[in-house]
Amino acid sequence: MALLKGSNSVSGGAVSFSEEQEALVLESWAIMKKDSANIGLRFFLKIFEVAPSARQLFPFLRNSDVPLDKNPRLKTHAMSVFVMTCEAAAQLRKAGKITVRDTTLERLGATHLKDGVGVAQFEVARFALLETIKEAVPADMWSPAMKGAWGEAFDQMVEAIKQEMKPIACY
Amino acid sequence: MALLKGSNSVSGGAVSFSEEQEALVLESWAIMKKDSANIGLRFFLKIFEVAPSARQLFPFLRNSDVPLDKNPRLKTHAMSVFVMTCEAAAQLRKAGKITVRDTTLERLGATHLKDGVGVAQFEVARFALLETIKEAVPADMWSPAMKGAWGEAFDQMVEAIKQEMKPIACY
Repeated sequence: MALLKGSNSVSGGAVSFSEEQEALVLESWAIMKKDSANIGLRFFLKIFEVAPSARQLFPFLRNSDVPLDKNPRLKTHAMSVFVMTCEAAAQLRKAGKITVRDTTLERLGATHLKDGVGVAQFEVARFALLETIKEAVPADMWSPAMKGAWGEAFDQMVEAIKQEMKPIACY
Repeated sequence: MALLKGSNSVSGGAVSFSEEQEALVLESWAIMKKDSANIGLRFFLKIFEVAPSARQLFPFLRNSDVPLDKNPRLKTHAMSVFVMTCEAAAQLRKAGKITVRDTTLERLGATHLKDGVGVAQFEVARFALLETIKEAVPADMWSPAMKGAWGEAFDQMVEAIKQEMKPIACY
């Protein structure tokens, strides 16, 4: 068997993320980082464009008359989720697993479980994230390989959250 | 109260679809009709791009090795759904209700109920339809009003299908 340069180094572990994938994520995250607030908001606006019913998942949107793109709480929340996602992707290869800041996977699992988030909702978020990044990076930077790298990182984050989406056992 | 030109004429009935909305649908459908097979396929490919799990709803995709865009059964099915949707929209104002060809609303309701299609799936189909039409018509024809007209027609079709999504009573 030939040794493939850039193939996954953590082949026996939970994480499969190649050097090339890491480079593509780091390259694009370096561009996006300085504009995370706006890009994060666009990420969430894309989610709501595809799935308007997802607004119901956010208590601060339910009784608000403020337009979505002007809602300060949405902007803060969206930036936080976007930065968390991108940082988890950027650190995925070195950390060897999904790591999240400002929260825990256990908490993310519990929240998504409580809200009834399932396959369909995670798929919409994945699509929205990839579309948002495609529009946020320079046109000549975006490629199928970059899409694949971000898609893989997102899938691993969802998998890590799903692992924690278990009803709490009562003793 | 002022009488609004182009406002809905069937205000008391189930259907609310203005002359302007009808004109926008007819204008764009006239352009798309001759290429319905390809546009219908793009509509379904967009659905699967946003929601890969939706492929499980189609038995002829489950055990197929043929790429989605080369699958003859998908192409036939997609064209049929696309033409049905567009014709229902084009006839909506004159018919005063959603009318479907080659099938019945009752059958559509039963199929969607059996397959567990819910809000999330209809939302993805709505987004995919509007994106597909946007890309299928000339750029200077597409407008927020045209998006609104197709969105309204789609919503009414979904509403008509949902009305039939009732478990069959057993005696």
